[in-house]
Amino acid sequence: MTSRAAILSIGDELTLGQIAQSNSGWIAQELLGAGVTVVEHRTVADDRTAIARAMKELASQVALVVATGGLGPTEDDLTREALADAMDCVDLVESAYERRVLEERFARRGVTMPLSNLRQACCPAGAAFLANPNGTAPGITARVGSAQLFCLPGPPHEMQPMFIAHVIPAAHALVAASGGDSVALCAVHSCGLPESTAAEKIRALMGRGSNPLVGTTASGATVTARIRASGSVARSGGAQRAACDVEQAWGAYVFGRDETSLSQALGELLRIRRESVALAESCTGGGIGHLITSASGSSEWFAGGWISYSNQFKREFLGVAPQLLQQHGAVSAPVARAMAVAAAHQAGVRWGLSATGIAGPTGATNEKPVGTVFIAVADRAADGGALAREFRFTGDRATIRLRAATIALQVLRLALLEQSELQLLGEVCSLPKNSP
Amino acid sequence: MTSRAAILSIGDELTLGQIAQSNSGWIAQELLGAGVTVVEHRTVADDRTAIARAMKELASQVALVVATGGLGPTEDDLTREALADAMDCVDLVESAYERRVLEERFARRGVTMPLSNLRQACCPAGAAFLANPNGTAPGITARVGSAQLFCLPGPPHEMQPMFIAHVIPAAHALVAASGGDSVALCAVHSCGLPESTAAEKIRALMGRGSNPLVGTTASGATVTARIRASGSVARSGGAQRAACDVEQAWGAYVFGRDETSLSQALGELLRIRRESVALAESCTGGGIGHLITSASGSSEWFAGGWISYSNQFKREFLGVAPQLLQQHGAVSAPVARAMAVAAAHQAGVRWGLSATGIAGPTGATNEKPVGTVFIAVADRAADGGALAREFRFTGDRATIRLRAATIALQVLRLALLEQSELQLLGEVCSLPKNSP
Repeated sequence: MTSRAAILSIGDELTLGQIAQSNSGWIAQELLGAGVTVVEHRTVADDRTAIARAMKELASQVALVVATGGLGPTEDDLTREALADAMDCVDLVESAYERRVLEERFARRGVTMPLSNLRQACCPAGAAFLANPNGTAPGITARVGSAQLFCLPGPPHEMQPMFIAHVIPAAHALVAASGGDSVALCAVHSCGLPESTAAEKIRALMGRGSNPLVGTTASGATVTARIRASGSVARSGGAQRAACDVEQAWGAYVFGRDETSLSQALGELLRIRRESVALAESCTGGGIGHLITSASGSSEWFAGGWISYSNQFKREFLGVAPQLLQQHGAVSAPVARAMAVAAAHQAGVRWGLSATGIAGPTGATNEKPVGTVFIAVADRAADGGALAREFRFTGDRATIRLRAATIALQVLRLALLEQSELQLLGEVCSLPKNSP
Repeated sequence: MTSRAAILSIGDELTLGQIAQSNSGWIAQELLGAGVTVVEHRTVADDRTAIARAMKELASQVALVVATGGLGPTEDDLTREALADAMDCVDLVESAYERRVLEERFARRGVTMPLSNLRQACCPAGAAFLANPNGTAPGITARVGSAQLFCLPGPPHEMQPMFIAHVIPAAHALVAASGGDSVALCAVHSCGLPESTAAEKIRALMGRGSNPLVGTTASGATVTARIRASGSVARSGGAQRAACDVEQAWGAYVFGRDETSLSQALGELLRIRRESVALAESCTGGGIGHLITSASGSSEWFAGGWISYSNQFKREFLGVAPQLLQQHGAVSAPVARAMAVAAAHQAGVRWGLSATGIAGPTGATNEKPVGTVFIAVADRAADGGALAREFRFTGDRATIRLRAATIALQVLRLALLEQSELQLLGEVCSLPKNSP
């Protein structure tokens, strides 16, 4: 019951999906950092009964409830009334002080205050106002049952400073009162492992209710282990130890921890070796380059590349032989190899990386269904050939392209680590690995 | 009670705020399009009791509940068990058919199925499976109290087709059974208008409680007007009329309605004219190409491009004069123009599009702060020069790069429409428009 929180978001535009909900993720992360675990997010419409019911239900389950939205001046802003209902139907009372603050705020802008704004100077009897330095809507805090409830405005630039000023201290007090349960978090990121295989490899760590608690999430071609240790386990480095265990189990598929992206991990490898990569992209259309350059400082290891979308472009600017295109088709291992070799050679760098494939929905043949992608790595320090790998990615056009671009980075990273024998997500067969 | 729905999202990574919640907004919009209003979103942790309680509470309030997540093969995937609890503690039973589907799926990939995946062939007695064409986790549907509950997998590319195949028909049946208050939705997309300016221009349409109801949402450099008409207004074409009003007010900033992307709109313009574009990208690193090729069929209007990240690459492969780079710097209007001209000329197409800038966080100078980006369009059918435009985008590295790539498409689109005099989001000054 203690050190647990819930988040309530209020607004028709949120329940209808007309604007994305961004506050609750931010609040959950901030509370977690303060040692409080958010166990539920709820979003309700601008409906007084629904808001009041949600406040009461959440307050009966957790010690801290953070509500956002519904504090504006218009008729569909009903958080004040609903809070009064949730506090067993107390009255709304106007604060002379808050009224003066509002009037002065408008006066400074040389504007007469609309009467509707007067509602913002009201709060339930027994509740307290929270100053809003960035807007007209003051926040409100009150006890509902045995929980502390905070009502904050919805716009993030108003909500966030108020959250930090008022909710974080309350979170610290809550953690202290419950014996100061420490929390430590860690994330380990891998690329190219199917999620079920990834989970299988760390099954021993993933028991329900264990401490540290380990779960996996998958996104694109990336699987992340999220580790959460609490109490003495957190204080004695249990999260870090579990992260090491995950890294051991996943091996070279792991590219980093916490905030590290695959682009950064790959860039760091190249930077240390003082080597660079050049690209030749077909089906990804620039997506690999976009990923690589998402890491700041990437000019140190990225020379540039060719988006060789048409066959003519492949011939003219990468010198891919017409008979290669004719004989094998643009989507083939020989063309992928020729593209990678040409990119590295022309740019005068050690590594060349290429992708050519069928992202769909059109362009498929019997032999090469949608999702067929060849990714090749050329190493000019080796024999001048290139390693091509064949994939069948599933999903729609956007998913196939994202997976191809992400896996391409991992293909290069594994080549740098001399681990190219590791099978990757979607890979269908081993081609003769260094044929010309 | 009828024609109302609720959404339940399941997963520790969501309640803890470790990954952003994107499914519920999409589901809410789709249901709204089918005439069903979502009145609550709830997100709960991977906790069997909490999931079951949420299912029961939501099922007592609405006629349709859509749950996502928790159907994976690992021990922290507890949606199946929780659903059985919510159905008054029925047993989980294994389906021989679903087991065979799973085994065949793994066999096709030449992989032995991990034992843990067997859990995905189980569902509560009295519930039914829903096929998942894009993943191993089948969905489940069941009645809980008087509501229909759908459990779908969390990854959007698996969830969305299943939602359209199974939930949408259920939504239509629900609306038909409740007498069917018509709802019509329309979205109008613009690029390059600041959100406050966009809202100001359509203020008369945006009154609370009006029908049609019009709101705006902003994302990257795009502002969308979302229009929702109901009842007789919907049946008499009120949403379409409001969409026309928005288009009138926003003018050439509008690139399309509903599912149309800026890439598709631009591609369609080029396709009709049988013209093509070639790219020269620096700070966007392939992002413009990735956007352009996100539209299927883009090989008709996209030849290819150069990711000229280094100065050497700009000199060697685009022939940018060294003295131009020395005198003005790589981030300058003359270099942007030279890049665009070279791209079009070398690829032998009419249009060249380039971007060069400082995405940060490093690389800024006093004169050229982070966010400075020059975008140029060359038209080989004109005098051989190019039009360069200067921008100062705000935000972090990812935001600046996304805005630059998106605005670049709009710069080209406006050039095609001979509307290059329209000021765009972040644009700082008008350069002499066709200097060489």
